[in-house]
Amino acid sequence: MSDVKILLTEKEMPRKWYNIMADMPNLPKPPLNPITKQPAGPEDLSAIFPMGLIQQEVSQERWIEIPEEVWEIYRLWRPSPLCRARRLEKALDTPAKIYYKYEGVSPAGSHKLNTAVPQAYYNKQEGITRLTTETGAGQWGVALSQACNFFDMECKVFMVKVSYQQKPYRRTMMQVFGSSVIPSPSDETESGRKVLAEDPDSPGSLGIAISEAVEVAAQRDDTNYALGSVLNHVLLHQTIIGLEAREQMAKAGDYPDVVIACCGGGSNFGGMAMPFAFDKLTRGAKVRLVAAEPTACPTLTRGKLGYDYGDTAGLTPLLYMYTLGSGFIPPGIHAGGLRYHGNSPILSQLLHDGIIEATALDQVACFEGAKLFAQCEGILPAPESAHAIQCAINEALAAREAGERRTILFNLSGHGLLDLPSYEAFMAGKLKDYPLPEEMLARSLASLPVV
Amino acid sequence: MSDVKILLTEKEMPRKWYNIMADMPNLPKPPLNPITKQPAGPEDLSAIFPMGLIQQEVSQERWIEIPEEVWEIYRLWRPSPLCRARRLEKALDTPAKIYYKYEGVSPAGSHKLNTAVPQAYYNKQEGITRLTTETGAGQWGVALSQACNFFDMECKVFMVKVSYQQKPYRRTMMQVFGSSVIPSPSDETESGRKVLAEDPDSPGSLGIAISEAVEVAAQRDDTNYALGSVLNHVLLHQTIIGLEAREQMAKAGDYPDVVIACCGGGSNFGGMAMPFAFDKLTRGAKVRLVAAEPTACPTLTRGKLGYDYGDTAGLTPLLYMYTLGSGFIPPGIHAGGLRYHGNSPILSQLLHDGIIEATALDQVACFEGAKLFAQCEGILPAPESAHAIQCAINEALAAREAGERRTILFNLSGHGLLDLPSYEAFMAGKLKDYPLPEEMLARSLASLPVV
Repeated sequence: MSDVKILLTEKEMPRKWYNIMADMPNLPKPPLNPITKQPAGPEDLSAIFPMGLIQQEVSQERWIEIPEEVWEIYRLWRPSPLCRARRLEKALDTPAKIYYKYEGVSPAGSHKLNTAVPQAYYNKQEGITRLTTETGAGQWGVALSQACNFFDMECKVFMVKVSYQQKPYRRTMMQVFGSSVIPSPSDETESGRKVLAEDPDSPGSLGIAISEAVEVAAQRDDTNYALGSVLNHVLLHQTIIGLEAREQMAKAGDYPDVVIACCGGGSNFGGMAMPFAFDKLTRGAKVRLVAAEPTACPTLTRGKLGYDYGDTAGLTPLLYMYTLGSGFIPPGIHAGGLRYHGNSPILSQLLHDGIIEATALDQVACFEGAKLFAQCEGILPAPESAHAIQCAINEALAAREAGERRTILFNLSGHGLLDLPSYEAFMAGKLKDYPLPEEMLARSLASLPVV
Repeated sequence: MSDVKILLTEKEMPRKWYNIMADMPNLPKPPLNPITKQPAGPEDLSAIFPMGLIQQEVSQERWIEIPEEVWEIYRLWRPSPLCRARRLEKALDTPAKIYYKYEGVSPAGSHKLNTAVPQAYYNKQEGITRLTTETGAGQWGVALSQACNFFDMECKVFMVKVSYQQKPYRRTMMQVFGSSVIPSPSDETESGRKVLAEDPDSPGSLGIAISEAVEVAAQRDDTNYALGSVLNHVLLHQTIIGLEAREQMAKAGDYPDVVIACCGGGSNFGGMAMPFAFDKLTRGAKVRLVAAEPTACPTLTRGKLGYDYGDTAGLTPLLYMYTLGSGFIPPGIHAGGLRYHGNSPILSQLLHDGIIEATALDQVACFEGAKLFAQCEGILPAPESAHAIQCAINEALAAREAGERRTILFNLSGHGLLDLPSYEAFMAGKLKDYPLPEEMLARSLASLPVV
């Protein structure tokens, strides 16, 4: 029987990222300055981002070289394995072949490190010695902490206060890697102090934490801000996932009929799907690219395409994207990484143009799927990744129904070892679904900014 | 530059375990029946172990075939990677080459799954449908839960009550894989009820949990007991670690001057070191084999070689081993897996005969070493594995002192993602060392059973 794990050697690891902006039938509309509402230029971003990343943000070059120093860090854990989920196939009694790419082998436990490392690198190149960021449950904060540690940079993470208190594991992990972790809202920033003045017991939110991190980054010349998803350069860095997966599928002598990944801000799905979108756009490949999102935060399946702010306070540039409205507050599902009101401009455009598709899944079903996957394949998935799994299971069952031997590929973006309390709640029957009422959605969308 | 990770394909994974009893200059003395004090025969063990494992316990065959069904499960995560810790070498400014074998890639997060899978398999072969075991922090309980899940068997884990309450992550993980997890002491067994009658608030201990698990296993014909270390068959199964590592070192064109692993009951160190002991015993290889244990529980470095009980209650067969006395209660160091008063009979004999050596390390130094390792290589080590790391660091510094390009190989037996509270205590400066006072040791050793 052929191997369970399809591996690449370090020498086979891609040397370039893939930039889909070279091949899109329609480019995403540019971001707008939130005050002037005119297209935002490099100068709008240079207070908090280095030129190396700003250039990538607007580049239309198809292949962008991975710097040697980044490649050297990547190979501490990359190439990541591609696995055939034979035991899951058997449990589902499906003729479908199910492959999964496993990004949980990264020391940060998820795909987030793929962009954290180059972001730290390009900042370091331009003399920046400190990065700030926000984090909710902590996946992104851990990744950026590790990346800064690798490049001997300081890292200051504003962690949503309720997570800081309730999720000490990832907080400690950031500290082991040398980061300073601040519960947000804090009294270190004007934004934080303002919130605390109104509500000293504020549990915090991602929106507030972003404001604090951006404020600190904008104040000091040695400090920049780093974002873990949504932007073009973030998606670019993540394409290493799909580029490796494509090589590995070729090694397995196979090609996917459908490629699936979970989708919050878009970097995980984009990273997996865009190299296959390349095949579709330039070589006529017949492959479906499916973004799996939660029904509780159905940005791509029920949102509206238009300009909106990236944060709740309305301080960021306006992005042209599918959005539920920047005032939308997603219910407390356990897949914290998928609780974002918008999506990346690139993926929004690709969805609008019919290159990719999207589907929404319920929380409880996703945990059922994750448990079945764990029992079959051993790996405990992150709640975010559970959406990709459940979507893949649905595809495998559809293949059984149709009696077709389809090939399914999904990205297992991270492990769930630090999400075990979510599994505890699931096992105790305490999780529920949050279908989004039509009138609530309409209300939220009614408040989109007028451009 | 050569690869960071030296990988084997699944086809290169060993098909046989190595049984050092074929090559030992002196065989370990046999276990004794705790009542008659006569050598224990298969009948003494058959109430709780299957014949397949009892035969391995006494076998002197050099190579023992890995059953196809076990091999099929192994390859969900094996062969595990061997890595060159170049960034650690650089941080230590040492001419030494440091390699580590990484067992944390197993879905259970440690090497324990290497023996849990064959133990479940051999029991299943003989019609057993349920296994019982004890667990402290939960590493072994998780591994056996996964193994039973893979073979559709039930698993009942008696978890030390204080860990059950304080360490919910691993408890939940066992439950995800279908195990029933009981806080021990429980009212489900006579041993448990007896303890509870005397002290309703008993926090439990590994000794009590073993008694409960063995009692349940002895009662029912469909149920057996599984032990995660110490016994010959357990060490045998773990040799897959060292066998792979030996092949990987050869691929790297290298051979270790010193092989290091942490040592509690002995299965981790034995699994790593015995294939190299084979080279030493049969081919004259000059390789030092160093067991790293905690100063708080210095079984091999300060214990006495003699017959002693495996448990605190004195119910198990008497084993001829280095021991601190079965009444010895190790202080609460965070490396829970190294808190055992005895060691395996095989390793005890090898130490006595000068084939292996041992060293003891302080808790705080081990966490310092683990933090440095994490910052260099990315991976957060388990507190047990931290002992191997600190020992390797000491060897690397000695090589620098001597100006010699020595080759160091150690086993990183597991990741520490579920041990983050221990790191939190370490970062807060709350950890301390527990040197064992001479008079306390003498008192404990004075109570060894007379044989």
